[in-house]
Amino acid sequence: MPTQNKQILLASRPHGEPTLDNFKLVQTELPSPAPGQLLLRSLYLSLDPYMRGRMNEGKSYASPVEVGGVMGGQAVTEVVESNHPDHRVGEIVLAPIGWQEYALSDGDGLQEIDPSLGPISYALGVLGMPGLTAYTGLMNIGQPKPGETLVVAAASGAVGSVVGQLGKLKGCRVIGIAGGAEKCRYVNEELGFDDCLDHRAADLAGRLKAACPDGVDVYFENVGGEVFTAVFPLLNNFARIPVCGLIAHYNATELPSGPDRVPLLMQNVLVKRLTLRGFIVSDFAAQFPQFLEEVGGWVRAGRIKYKEDVSEGLENAPRELIGVLRGENFGKKIVRVGTVPREA
Amino acid sequence: MPTQNKQILLASRPHGEPTLDNFKLVQTELPSPAPGQLLLRSLYLSLDPYMRGRMNEGKSYASPVEVGGVMGGQAVTEVVESNHPDHRVGEIVLAPIGWQEYALSDGDGLQEIDPSLGPISYALGVLGMPGLTAYTGLMNIGQPKPGETLVVAAASGAVGSVVGQLGKLKGCRVIGIAGGAEKCRYVNEELGFDDCLDHRAADLAGRLKAACPDGVDVYFENVGGEVFTAVFPLLNNFARIPVCGLIAHYNATELPSGPDRVPLLMQNVLVKRLTLRGFIVSDFAAQFPQFLEEVGGWVRAGRIKYKEDVSEGLENAPRELIGVLRGENFGKKIVRVGTVPREA
Repeated sequence: MPTQNKQILLASRPHGEPTLDNFKLVQTELPSPAPGQLLLRSLYLSLDPYMRGRMNEGKSYASPVEVGGVMGGQAVTEVVESNHPDHRVGEIVLAPIGWQEYALSDGDGLQEIDPSLGPISYALGVLGMPGLTAYTGLMNIGQPKPGETLVVAAASGAVGSVVGQLGKLKGCRVIGIAGGAEKCRYVNEELGFDDCLDHRAADLAGRLKAACPDGVDVYFENVGGEVFTAVFPLLNNFARIPVCGLIAHYNATELPSGPDRVPLLMQNVLVKRLTLRGFIVSDFAAQFPQFLEEVGGWVRAGRIKYKEDVSEGLENAPRELIGVLRGENFGKKIVRVGTVPREA
Repeated sequence: MPTQNKQILLASRPHGEPTLDNFKLVQTELPSPAPGQLLLRSLYLSLDPYMRGRMNEGKSYASPVEVGGVMGGQAVTEVVESNHPDHRVGEIVLAPIGWQEYALSDGDGLQEIDPSLGPISYALGVLGMPGLTAYTGLMNIGQPKPGETLVVAAASGAVGSVVGQLGKLKGCRVIGIAGGAEKCRYVNEELGFDDCLDHRAADLAGRLKAACPDGVDVYFENVGGEVFTAVFPLLNNFARIPVCGLIAHYNATELPSGPDRVPLLMQNVLVKRLTLRGFIVSDFAAQFPQFLEEVGGWVRAGRIKYKEDVSEGLENAPRELIGVLRGENFGKKIVRVGTVPREA
């Protein structure tokens, strides 16, 4: 058993794009669990775009990380010591311990992972928060119907890839948008979308229009920026827009220059009877069992495919989060923090 | 029986605010109904903000009025000749005959008015399209709950006055916004809102914030512009915004200057899990019987009050519509086109 713990702290708040200077790696004494506590060892850390928001000061839907505090996040962990009646050593649990190798827990917020459902790291992706985000946002707000056109950006990512494949299972025409030819090829050929457009190539708006001859009925918004601008004029009457993320804006330090397009947006909301609705996965937490059964079944049957982008070592998490915010990851970004026990 | 008909045509499309030159009063031969047809005599013409949109070229949710065509709209009419098996002379019917004294009809789109439900002109307001707009938008999209705060603009108008009174009946704290002290006094004292703010006085944002100490849960959007800007920062998590009209923008010829606040709007939609949903009354036409029973009952019981602003003579309709778009009407604007028979 080691005697030291590694943690990554928020050293300072970023202005715009985060830099490595905003993070600090520290070594601390490995703590011992008091009565009723557990010691958890991190195996896989999830890196997700929402973490950029937590680095800012000020109220959002969750409290910000304090400067000097451990960066937050979910990890797949192993129970290595237990003074807790409900947990035994060797259990694999999802735990909100953030960016560190070890952490104490009093059991709150832990979720046992059943290794028979798939690789344990999937609890950070297709069978966890991103998958549930895709499933609940699409089903509750997007409400896709057979024959409708669904557009999803960040289509090779943890959320977008599931949204699009669910759309196909629901009988939609599904158009993905992704950054770069390799991701688009994957989305098109491996995930089975009807088409995937590279947003880095010229004239996204024109190509998207050509790819959506019947307009757009559901736009799953997880990007914002130029992609939203391209989709917007194609929206059909009664289109639904689940708003799940806006990664294009997370590093923005000011609003774009004018004109102010809010009146244009609202006019379209009115005339086309659009529904824009924001959501956060926790709003639909009660649907987790149903999600796990349905999507878990499709994953095991190979009808939903899933790609991980794994980096090694906690110390690389800052660089990798910066990469996620640039769209450099290809698949769900996770960091392997510790040696993973042989899976069941 | 006269031999001449008066009609008001769209003479030219307005650029910005309409002017009297955009309209043309003409006299035509009074037509005779063919077999299967009716001749209708207009009693009351409804003037509504949506009519500004119909004066523009280009596709909206309804076809535009053609240049040289009769201005469109709903009227309360009397059947004065009938070769139609389902209608007899003397009946009072709501008819989409537009801005004219007489019109032929083959019976399509007519809706019989039951004079026992209230004054026949109410079919253009509280018991008609504006009332149904208020009722369906608030109930289906706004979904007000007891104790929540509801904000409604144009609060003395045909739609806003009903929205606010329904909100009170549903147990909400209701804050109105209207133009001028007289309208605010009416909304406050006669309609029983909790407060009404004059948007023409200084610091609407600050006064609205003070009037909504618990934030805003439902904002019934029928105005846009500065009112939306004042409400927006006060919206609570999970607030609902039925988007019903944007009168502040109808005469706009270009977008306002920057910055572009769309990213700010979308960020709030996400973080606060807002729902913005546009609707048009026809989307909820199936709820008309339920509306008529429920709201009609409240009107007859005096629990929903209603104010009409009546102008005399078809020839004044252009001037009066321009006034509606400036917010000069006080209550539902209707034009008395013809002598009204003694009501039942």
